[in-house]
Formats: sequence, C-alpha cells, structure tokens
Amino acid sequence: MGFKSINLSEKLSKFSEHWAPKIIAQMNDYHFKAVKFQGEFVWHSHEDTDEVFIVLDGEMSIAFRDGSVELKPLRLI
Amino acid sequence: MGFKSINLSEKLSKFSEHWAPKIIAQMNDYHFKAVKFQGEFVWHSHEDTDEVFIVLDGEMSIAFRDGSVELKPLRLI
Repeated sequence: MGFKSINLSEKLSKFSEHWAPKIIAQMNDYHFKAVKFQGEFVWHSHEDTDEVFIVLDGEMSIAFRDGSVELKPLRLI
Repeated sequence: MGFKSINLSEKLSKFSEHWAPKIIAQMNDYHFKAVKFQGEFVWHSHEDTDEVFIVLDGEMSIAFRDGSVELKPLRLI
C-alpha cells in the first residue's frame, strides 16, 4: 500500500469549471472528489450509500423530503 | 437513511485530552473521528485498510518504511 499527501488548494487551483467533480484521492474503494459549483443541482438520491460533503468555501444547502441541512466551511474557531 | 450536519469546531471544543479519538460521524461502515494529539504515537500499521488524515491545526508527520509524509492544515489559498 502506498501513501500520499494531497494538497487541496493545489487541486482546486487546477480547474474552474462547475459541476465537474475531480477524483483527488482514494481510500479503499471510496473516492474523494473536489468540485466547484453554483446554483442548483437536479434533485436525486443515493439509495445504496451514504455521501459526505465537506464545504471548503461558500455555503451549501441540501434538501431532503423531510427537511434540509445548511453546510458552511470547515473552519476552526 | 438520515442526514446530519456536523459542526467540527463544536466537536473539537468538547474535549481537550490527547490521543482519545471521538467518533463524530459515520458514512456507511466508516467512522469519522476527531482527535487531538502531541508528540509521537507508537509505530503501527493497518494491513487491511487505507486510512485518511485531514489536519485541521498544527502539523503531522507520518513515517513509513520507505519515506514519510508531512501534513499541514486544510486551508484555501
């Protein structure tokens, strides 16, 4: 097994288009993707898996049938 | 399936002891843990899985048989 350090700022500086996720790392059979977006995405669901979002800049709202969550950037106090 | 917003700053403010990882979220069968530490940890390996570290503050060095990686906080430029 290998090891790798991922520079997230560098990865993000390499693209500017929206809604085009880039695979930047892999952990076992999971991908880490970096994505930039603005506006709404078509409402959809993943019945078979969880999904995690870590917001780096801006704000994100995810609507569910029974509520919504607002996500803000990961920042230390 | 449920959904949850995790406030990382809040989670980190709730404990101060070192080397005591706290499970703060779960994605499928993976745990997300928050941990504070200083100094060295006993050298060990996980033969059967990858492991991901996201550094929020400070710096971290991980030594492997064939090299080491230095990790710094996740920050946008």
